[in-house]
Amino acid sequence: ADVKKIAVIAGDGIGPEVIAEAEKVLKRTEELFGYKFETEHGLFGGIAIDQRGTPLPQETLEMCKKADAVLLGAVGGPKWDNNPKELRPETGLLGIRKALGLFSNIRPAVIFDCLKDASTLKPEVLEGTDLIVVRELTGGIYFGDKFRRDTPNGQEAVDTCVYNVSEVERIVRQAFDIARTRRKKLASVDKANVLETSRLWRETVNRIAADYPDVELEHVLVDNCAMQLLRRPSSFDVIVTENMFGDILSDEAAMLTGSIGMLSSASLGEGSFGLYEPVHGSAPDIAGQGIANPIATILSVALMFRLTFGYHDAAGSIERAVKNVLDAGHRTGDIAVDKSKAIGTTAMGDLIVAAM
Amino acid sequence: ADVKKIAVIAGDGIGPEVIAEAEKVLKRTEELFGYKFETEHGLFGGIAIDQRGTPLPQETLEMCKKADAVLLGAVGGPKWDNNPKELRPETGLLGIRKALGLFSNIRPAVIFDCLKDASTLKPEVLEGTDLIVVRELTGGIYFGDKFRRDTPNGQEAVDTCVYNVSEVERIVRQAFDIARTRRKKLASVDKANVLETSRLWRETVNRIAADYPDVELEHVLVDNCAMQLLRRPSSFDVIVTENMFGDILSDEAAMLTGSIGMLSSASLGEGSFGLYEPVHGSAPDIAGQGIANPIATILSVALMFRLTFGYHDAAGSIERAVKNVLDAGHRTGDIAVDKSKAIGTTAMGDLIVAAM
Ligand SMILES: CC(C)[C@H](C(=O)O)[C@@H](O)C(=O)O
Ligand SMILES: CC(C)[C@H](C(=O)O)[C@@H](O)C(=O)O
Repeated sequence: ADVKKIAVIAGDGIGPEVIAEAEKVLKRTEELFGYKFETEHGLFGGIAIDQRGTPLPQETLEMCKKADAVLLGAVGGPKWDNNPKELRPETGLLGIRKALGLFSNIRPAVIFDCLKDASTLKPEVLEGTDLIVVRELTGGIYFGDKFRRDTPNGQEAVDTCVYNVSEVERIVRQAFDIARTRRKKLASVDKANVLETSRLWRETVNRIAADYPDVELEHVLVDNCAMQLLRRPSSFDVIVTENMFGDILSDEAAMLTGSIGMLSSASLGEGSFGLYEPVHGSAPDIAGQGIANPIATILSVALMFRLTFGYHDAAGSIERAVKNVLDAGHRTGDIAVDKSKAIGTTAMGDLIVAAM
Repeated sequence: ADVKKIAVIAGDGIGPEVIAEAEKVLKRTEELFGYKFETEHGLFGGIAIDQRGTPLPQETLEMCKKADAVLLGAVGGPKWDNNPKELRPETGLLGIRKALGLFSNIRPAVIFDCLKDASTLKPEVLEGTDLIVVRELTGGIYFGDKFRRDTPNGQEAVDTCVYNVSEVERIVRQAFDIARTRRKKLASVDKANVLETSRLWRETVNRIAADYPDVELEHVLVDNCAMQLLRRPSSFDVIVTENMFGDILSDEAAMLTGSIGMLSSASLGEGSFGLYEPVHGSAPDIAGQGIANPIATILSVALMFRLTFGYHDAAGSIERAVKNVLDAGHRTGDIAVDKSKAIGTTAMGDLIVAAM
């Protein structure tokens, strides 16, 4: 079979621990389905700062560019938080997105049956919630000019938010396409009553909507969306928005599911290439203890199989295995009701591999 | 007694209905406490567009400038949504903030006992929630340069986010001062890992914190704050943030209380001048039916008494009256469990006036 190259970046904190379990899943997939993966490992984030003096070493970037997909654990931690900008893990994150052309971040926010009670929302409000946030990832205020200047009124800082019509078009088309495969509802989020970039965004959405008459479109102002996610989460299907709004709303959406330790995400560019990672962070407080939940990372592998490789059989096998293991009552500490019965990272990974 | 001038702006939708009840409260305060108010009415928002061809007529602005405080109902509605920018109600709102120097928007998010179940959050999560969002209101991406330009890659839109150090300083000092009168905890929200304006913001907060050693300070990234508001709302006391983040987070905070029909807000400048308004909007769908809830507007009067006039006795009287009327079981439709027993706008206003 055709060998798929996967660049594996363990990163910082619990990253290496959860990635180890995801790699077991890759191996088991080869045995069960006959697919072939070639993995290569690279340094990225805090560990790369420590060992290479930069969060995104050139060799890691080259490795990613040669791969068919990237699997990322997590990056960052308090150790590097006060570093100058060029020596901070998030600078590497922004750099890799731009360098790999990953213009779209896709975050499914779903409710896991076994975690229904983990949310701070009432179960009857959450019932049926199954939404995807599609966030623009390489434009907007993240990447525009930023600087300081002295003025007669003292020092001033400036950030610039820029979008051109083609940047909006590609992400909006992708969101419409995703909506088409689901409940055919798209909510486009902007602040068109204040921002010029949002007015360009909205015009572009309206123009493209003509090509998707089968998808129901609503425009939602960002402040209102922050409210509606709380009030009627299950009414959303696909939400598409610009970079900064997407950063905020995707975290809000993830948290309201109560399943943040279980959610995976994909960052996509043109073609089938993608970077896959859990939504949770590097959790430095529990790193190295063998207690992190590997499920979000394992489900990121399933997402990679679906979106980049089209291996729906293997993806289904992973997703079912996770469900069966949870249904059988196994829990890591973060999702256990009775913490004394919690199992560790490798035990959870082993159970899932065995259930595939 | 010294006569206080109040500029009253009813606005659009349910604005005139709820403002009428607030004016009854003003009158009753004069009778009970001997204070004297002089009210003047002005056109603003959609109705001003219709009758004067601009959302913020010069005469309304002059009236506000001569007043000690402004009481605002609500502005906006679908009728004006597709107008060009200069003829939209929100342009008037941004204009009045800037023209009156209202650099700070204060939104208390509290849980009303009788509305505990109205929130989509679990009651045990909400328990004890009592927070204030202090939002910077005249800077940031709202007021920076905005424009379109043609580029080789097609049309491009640009918004500029600008903060100078003194703009940050005044709002942050105000937030620290407010925290001092409460539980002495301040959460400063920014995106310092990405934005230059946020880095200036954070440096300024840290510098000013030296003058407030008695206030516990935490820095929270905006995406994380959107999550923590859901996870641990009661742990927040005062939240201070820039304009755009404040727009989103204050709406999220208001919605999680479940009490959005009851929340009031203040927009303050230098000195004691302030503009007071309910958090809810103009609700065009129920306008003119006499069923809107006037409580948020009535509580905005109490907030005006406290923050601008220092009339704590009268403010307390209003707040207790609202509580007593609610405790007695009276409800407008928006907050009634049994809608068939709901009372109307004027009935609710009359009950509160009688209970003062
Ligand atoms: C670490 C930070 C730069 C990053 C972002 O804001 O994009 C993170 O919050 C995310 O959402 O991946
Ligand atoms: C109407 C709009 C311009 C306004 C804002 O974004 O400030 C509103 O959302 C608010 O919060 O008062």
